[in-house]
Amino acid sequence: MKPVIVVHGGAGRIFKDREEGARSGVTRAAMKGYSILKQGGNALDAVEEAVTSMEDDPHFNAGCGSVLNEKGEVEMDAIIMDGKSLASGAVSAVKCIANPIKLARLVMEKTEHMLLTDHGANLFAKAMGVPEIPGEKLITERSRERWSKNLEDPGTVGAVAIDNEGNVACATSTGGLTNKLVGRVGDSACIGSGGYADNHVGAISTTGHGESMMKVVLARLILYHMEQGMSPMEAADTALNYMKTRVGGLGGVIVVSNSGDWAARFSTKQMSWATVKDDQLHLFSPSDCTVSHLASC
Amino acid sequence: MKPVIVVHGGAGRIFKDREEGARSGVTRAAMKGYSILKQGGNALDAVEEAVTSMEDDPHFNAGCGSVLNEKGEVEMDAIIMDGKSLASGAVSAVKCIANPIKLARLVMEKTEHMLLTDHGANLFAKAMGVPEIPGEKLITERSRERWSKNLEDPGTVGAVAIDNEGNVACATSTGGLTNKLVGRVGDSACIGSGGYADNHVGAISTTGHGESMMKVVLARLILYHMEQGMSPMEAADTALNYMKTRVGGLGGVIVVSNSGDWAARFSTKQMSWATVKDDQLHLFSPSDCTVSHLASC
Repeated sequence: MKPVIVVHGGAGRIFKDREEGARSGVTRAAMKGYSILKQGGNALDAVEEAVTSMEDDPHFNAGCGSVLNEKGEVEMDAIIMDGKSLASGAVSAVKCIANPIKLARLVMEKTEHMLLTDHGANLFAKAMGVPEIPGEKLITERSRERWSKNLEDPGTVGAVAIDNEGNVACATSTGGLTNKLVGRVGDSACIGSGGYADNHVGAISTTGHGESMMKVVLARLILYHMEQGMSPMEAADTALNYMKTRVGGLGGVIVVSNSGDWAARFSTKQMSWATVKDDQLHLFSPSDCTVSHLASC
Repeated sequence: MKPVIVVHGGAGRIFKDREEGARSGVTRAAMKGYSILKQGGNALDAVEEAVTSMEDDPHFNAGCGSVLNEKGEVEMDAIIMDGKSLASGAVSAVKCIANPIKLARLVMEKTEHMLLTDHGANLFAKAMGVPEIPGEKLITERSRERWSKNLEDPGTVGAVAIDNEGNVACATSTGGLTNKLVGRVGDSACIGSGGYADNHVGAISTTGHGESMMKVVLARLILYHMEQGMSPMEAADTALNYMKTRVGGLGGVIVVSNSGDWAARFSTKQMSWATVKDDQLHLFSPSDCTVSHLASC
């Protein structure tokens, strides 16, 4: 199996002044993940590395650069899933951690649980030797400014990959919604909504209006359509269209099938994404808006 | 449409000394919910009332009677979902609240979010005027004893209903796993895993090994099978069998379809359940074990 990675940096409107940062950020993340796959590494390591890279990049709403809740704090959700065993790990409403996706991986591998929340997630981090950092270190000037003006900032990040053994994996990480209530958990911590991976079908990571994606369990829905014979592109479009008509929600998804086909689709105005397959990088362009979002191959 | 309600009081082994309590508890819950439906009340009110009744009953692992986490505290998860709009509300790892299912309903109706966790859920409860109670009030002698011996106690509770307008709803509430890590969230707070309701198909509430049900997004999986033409019983058995073979997990489910067919199925040794349809009560019997769990009509 030829390895493939697809990453996204969030669905929504990409502002002009953020375009270059988003392009370089998703490119770097995709290249880092692909490099692991090319060296024979596994899909889980690749998606973790790609998402970590975007968590560390202040251009995205995840890790450093996360949006602020109603109290002006950063609370983050993340999930990672292994398509071979259906094992998964997630954290919700976690504070003061640089890389929630790495903590989610530890939940998957070091506990018998799948989701740890809030204070409990921080206790677990401490037990694992994951350092706490001051919450302010995750806050950027921009996130504070947009919080004070109550403006949304798209930029949930995610990755899906297939490795040379045919294993698929997904990872998603986010700071959530600007001015959300303390303790609000969105789709990104919720298996089936923020992501799903199954070697029998493929892997998905989602971005967009979290509550809408939860209502339709979006990631799992797309894989059901693929199980029924749809291509990644058809399945993604069918599910995004259903979400729009049934619950009025917009979003975007990246998909890789277990045969290495991929798609990056969205019903929002734009979505930043990048993919590497056959050593070729493809990524979104500024003109890549809803009417022509034909990214798949 | 003739109203139907099905409730469960948890999948697992029902100990002899708990049998009578479980029977009277599920009977009371089913009758209370059915009484609302008979008076023309809606499915959401019926499942909330049924689950509240079991949260207040110390025989079940939800509300008062919840199992204790590694620190000897009660942390509870609950979800409620409206099949008409796909709206849903949930709380995770919430403490010191008598009826998590009522708080989940408030999350659904009074916020723009779907899931509030831990401290944030308690802040929201306070804002809504929901009283906090001392944590010890939720702890029974039995739960403390089983905690000290590290023994599991099945008893997650749930309800599904269809009202005379054809609306379906589900509700699930639990104290989770004995000796779970602080902050562990299971399937019961996770849409698609602990429950799902869609007027186009039906409603489900699940019980059993939470992490396994999350891996296969069990409730949504059963509804997919029903969308493909399976009966509630076939869909439940197919999904429970898949969960057993794919991830080695056991559980139980209650199902009502949008035509009023119902099923109560399980792969565990036993499950306590009750249903009322056509003014007739049916409920589990002590001999109702895996080999003869043919509860459906």
